[in-house]
Amino acid sequence: MPSYKAPVDDVLFLLNDVIGIEKYNNVPGFADATPDLVKAILEEGAKLCEEVLQPLNRIGDEQGCTRHEDGRVTTPEGFKAAYDKYTEGGWVGLSADPDYGGQGLPHTLSAVMSEFLSAANMAFAMYPGLAQGAIAALTLHGSDAQKATYLPKLIAGEWLGTMNLTEPHCGTDLGLLKTKAVPNGDGSYAITGTKIFISSGDNDLVDNIIHLVLARIEGAPEGTKGISLFVVPKVRVNADGSLGAANAVECGALEHKMGIHGNATCVMNYDGATGWLVGEENKGLRAMFTMMNEARLGVGIQGLAQSEVAYQNAVDYARERRQGRAISGVKEPEQSADPIIVHPDVRRMLMSMKAFNEAARALILWTAIRGDVAHRGTDTAERQAAEDLMGLMTPVIKGVITDTGFQNTVMAQQVYGGHGYIAEWGMEQFVRDARISMIYEGANGIQALDLVGRKLPANGGRAVMAFFQEVGEYVVAHQDDEAMAPFIGPLKTGLETLQQATMWFMQNAMAKPDNAGAGSTDYMHLFGLVALGYMWAQIAKAAQEAVASGNGNAAFCETKLATGRYFMERIMPETAAHLARIQFGADSMMALPAEAF
Amino acid sequence: MPSYKAPVDDVLFLLNDVIGIEKYNNVPGFADATPDLVKAILEEGAKLCEEVLQPLNRIGDEQGCTRHEDGRVTTPEGFKAAYDKYTEGGWVGLSADPDYGGQGLPHTLSAVMSEFLSAANMAFAMYPGLAQGAIAALTLHGSDAQKATYLPKLIAGEWLGTMNLTEPHCGTDLGLLKTKAVPNGDGSYAITGTKIFISSGDNDLVDNIIHLVLARIEGAPEGTKGISLFVVPKVRVNADGSLGAANAVECGALEHKMGIHGNATCVMNYDGATGWLVGEENKGLRAMFTMMNEARLGVGIQGLAQSEVAYQNAVDYARERRQGRAISGVKEPEQSADPIIVHPDVRRMLMSMKAFNEAARALILWTAIRGDVAHRGTDTAERQAAEDLMGLMTPVIKGVITDTGFQNTVMAQQVYGGHGYIAEWGMEQFVRDARISMIYEGANGIQALDLVGRKLPANGGRAVMAFFQEVGEYVVAHQDDEAMAPFIGPLKTGLETLQQATMWFMQNAMAKPDNAGAGSTDYMHLFGLVALGYMWAQIAKAAQEAVASGNGNAAFCETKLATGRYFMERIMPETAAHLARIQFGADSMMALPAEAF
Repeated sequence: MPSYKAPVDDVLFLLNDVIGIEKYNNVPGFADATPDLVKAILEEGAKLCEEVLQPLNRIGDEQGCTRHEDGRVTTPEGFKAAYDKYTEGGWVGLSADPDYGGQGLPHTLSAVMSEFLSAANMAFAMYPGLAQGAIAALTLHGSDAQKATYLPKLIAGEWLGTMNLTEPHCGTDLGLLKTKAVPNGDGSYAITGTKIFISSGDNDLVDNIIHLVLARIEGAPEGTKGISLFVVPKVRVNADGSLGAANAVECGALEHKMGIHGNATCVMNYDGATGWLVGEENKGLRAMFTMMNEARLGVGIQGLAQSEVAYQNAVDYARERRQGRAISGVKEPEQSADPIIVHPDVRRMLMSMKAFNEAARALILWTAIRGDVAHRGTDTAERQAAEDLMGLMTPVIKGVITDTGFQNTVMAQQVYGGHGYIAEWGMEQFVRDARISMIYEGANGIQALDLVGRKLPANGGRAVMAFFQEVGEYVVAHQDDEAMAPFIGPLKTGLETLQQATMWFMQNAMAKPDNAGAGSTDYMHLFGLVALGYMWAQIAKAAQEAVASGNGNAAFCETKLATGRYFMERIMPETAAHLARIQFGADSMMALPAEAF
Repeated sequence: MPSYKAPVDDVLFLLNDVIGIEKYNNVPGFADATPDLVKAILEEGAKLCEEVLQPLNRIGDEQGCTRHEDGRVTTPEGFKAAYDKYTEGGWVGLSADPDYGGQGLPHTLSAVMSEFLSAANMAFAMYPGLAQGAIAALTLHGSDAQKATYLPKLIAGEWLGTMNLTEPHCGTDLGLLKTKAVPNGDGSYAITGTKIFISSGDNDLVDNIIHLVLARIEGAPEGTKGISLFVVPKVRVNADGSLGAANAVECGALEHKMGIHGNATCVMNYDGATGWLVGEENKGLRAMFTMMNEARLGVGIQGLAQSEVAYQNAVDYARERRQGRAISGVKEPEQSADPIIVHPDVRRMLMSMKAFNEAARALILWTAIRGDVAHRGTDTAERQAAEDLMGLMTPVIKGVITDTGFQNTVMAQQVYGGHGYIAEWGMEQFVRDARISMIYEGANGIQALDLVGRKLPANGGRAVMAFFQEVGEYVVAHQDDEAMAPFIGPLKTGLETLQQATMWFMQNAMAKPDNAGAGSTDYMHLFGLVALGYMWAQIAKAAQEAVASGNGNAAFCETKLATGRYFMERIMPETAAHLARIQFGADSMMALPAEAF
């Protein structure tokens, strides 16, 4: 059976020593998050994840959810009790608006907790995770009355929420959606249509579920310009806040999926259900987009989480399993064989996962802090700069961390040999669960297009120029520091490679847009490597400073330095291959007629 | 529901136009395999796979196998009837020894049929697949009496066979195995022990199952030098060939696996079962090794097969699913959206799979023919050269084609977006089934070590020098051919990169063997890319010649040329990254103490 230990020390090192969270004390909520409080919160959260949620992960996978004849959906054994513990701990409202019962702490802390939750039990974590989307939607776009009705219950965790976008014939291309909204004359609408792939769509964890639904008001324009956002509660809410009659919405079926069995992925049937417009008519897609960065960051976190828990278990196995002898000479002659962690190829897998995970965690926190600044900051210029960088990094985090996170779960499974293929060992579940993160919330190919087609050119390239400038200045500032040479050299090369690729798009994609599409996934991964390399440089610097000051844990810091060197040597060389592919353009990719495949 | 169309035309083009199978007519069995006969056989085999086996693939996954209280194992609905059709067609004996009822045709044809079978239904294909291992073991190492007893029944498909190596505490390191063999005094042995992960271990397709079992004779030396090979029938065979009493061997449990549910993966309990020594005492491991190349080639074929069937379905979906508009301009204005095959990033996925699969198929056939020459050839020098190349290429095929084949199933699933994650669409089954091929028959890390540690240095590097010479001469012979420039240039660069990596090992791995281990997986993939690039150059040449002669299908040949160009542009650049990683050596990989992970 797999186990999980939340990487609290690593997070604290990143927040305090690498990112320097105290620099953000001018942002509302940050001053309250003192180092001691953060530590206490994370340790408490870690305990919940390790002791309550992780032991339910296999059970959730084996049992899955059940839809009963009357349409009710029940979750796996133990999920309800665990959810109650989760809400009793006040975790839902950690960074939510204090006006509605939240604690107002930085979203960055929620991002950390999201990693722990997803690593412990991804299917479970999706229930409160989706509710965060509904909370964000109503906070940003709901009327005061809607906020008063829904937010306190959602933030307390008494109710859950969902996001309803996809329909059978449209996922990526929401302009095709058909769900209808007909005015009832009393300010409400009758919503009719079928939504699919609705995570947490129905369940027995709470009494009410608040669905956020994209639909087309009768007579609205075709395409994306005629889509509105509605709030549709599973159970109607009376004026006094008590629950009224059931609404005309039901889970029509549960999907049979590759993984995340413990989460109820529903086909939702809306049959004239009563809903209320959120925000403006026909501006529903724009409203969804304002929440997209957080949601996509959340999926990137899932990629890291599965990679981390799979890695931890692979390390345990590699220390315990004995097969063969070290090629450099027998290590434990008194035993019949050496533990497989002595073998370089096993090390290769462990180091690759470790070097990726630690930088990915840094990049997520670096970006999450920019999200906090963008939403709460008091300085307009700082807010804009933070929003630029968060928007730029979001598709990179979602695409790269889920792609590589998935590959890492496969690698961790490989460390187990034949046992990795057997369900009881739990490694194959990580692979199956992680797989969805590459698909939902915008498949990774869409992330790459978002990066190349939208985020790069936005505001005349302001965001990407700012990122290049920041990394470039970092390189200049440290290039004479001999101890930093193993990090600065490869980072400089990586940055130059990324700038060349960017230039190539500028010169070749205007006249022929297919050239941008053809190189988009390579560009996203190239961008991710440079961003991760930048994180490693900063981690290394912080580790060196901690050792120099005598305040740091020397072994911890030496491990960071060795792991960072591995990243630079073994993972960064991929940047050149990405550039080479990008520069070949679209010709051979688009040469064949569709019938020639 | 997924479908499958066996790539008969592609195989015929490879055999006739690229490899030139008629050149091998001096090898016994080849002259009988006239182009017309080969075509007829493959078309008949394709029909069986497409119409009988493929429709059972999902059923097999859903139902899995069942172990009953009495230890009997039953296979999914329809498997028995399909197996009977398979044996009635004479497929088991296609390339088996005519003295025992086989047809004596080239093994290369069996390799082709293996691809079709595995693509249609991998779990099913493993039943006769494992029997081929038993046939090979008895043909090569069995006594005349053993051959007479078992081979005719196995070759007719009336009985099946298994290979029993792994035990709970040992897989890779067979020196640790504990299963005991105690002489009964009558020439037989009593075999006692537990074997795990035994594919096809028990089933209801046949009346008898012939287990080939590695065990340690009482008093034998420890480690790999004390292991012997035994034949242990499930049901004892009387002197007249009729079935006698049940043997003391039973399936103790079925494993719960990530995939290949239709195949019974058994824990096999031997409780004093009667077995007979095959070959010499204590030479069991060596006997297994002589069959290893074929078995590993077979697993490489599974990797291609899953990649191919997943690719075919992704193409179908990409042609039918409509989302968004081509960035180069609307393609089908009369429709609400264009088919997703217009999008470059979807093309990238399809072209990557296609470019890999077609070269992988060529490499498998190129190697299988060398296997036939090695086993049947009449010229000693030719046999040795063929055996060298087959031995060299076996770990490359097993490791690279299963690694990339698996990635391709993931890519094909990605083309489906959210639907790829849903069981009914069948794409996630390809991912789960393909995953095992990276693990069993020697995990891919072991393949890489076999290549670097055993195959490279064998006979003073004779095999690798011969391969480099062959590719080098090919480059020289075609480097002035302008039409071949897009292929020869990247192949030349790839070969030079591979030679540099080889040289680096020669200079750096003697003194520090960890340097070889640290670079082994990169080296294996680098080797694979060069070998596949070499295949593409030959495919391109054959396509150009077919077009020039006016005999070829022009559209087919143009497709080959465009696909080959894609391979050279988009896949070959990876070679440089592999070399860079190899040249960093083991230092950062091995730096951390085990407790620092």
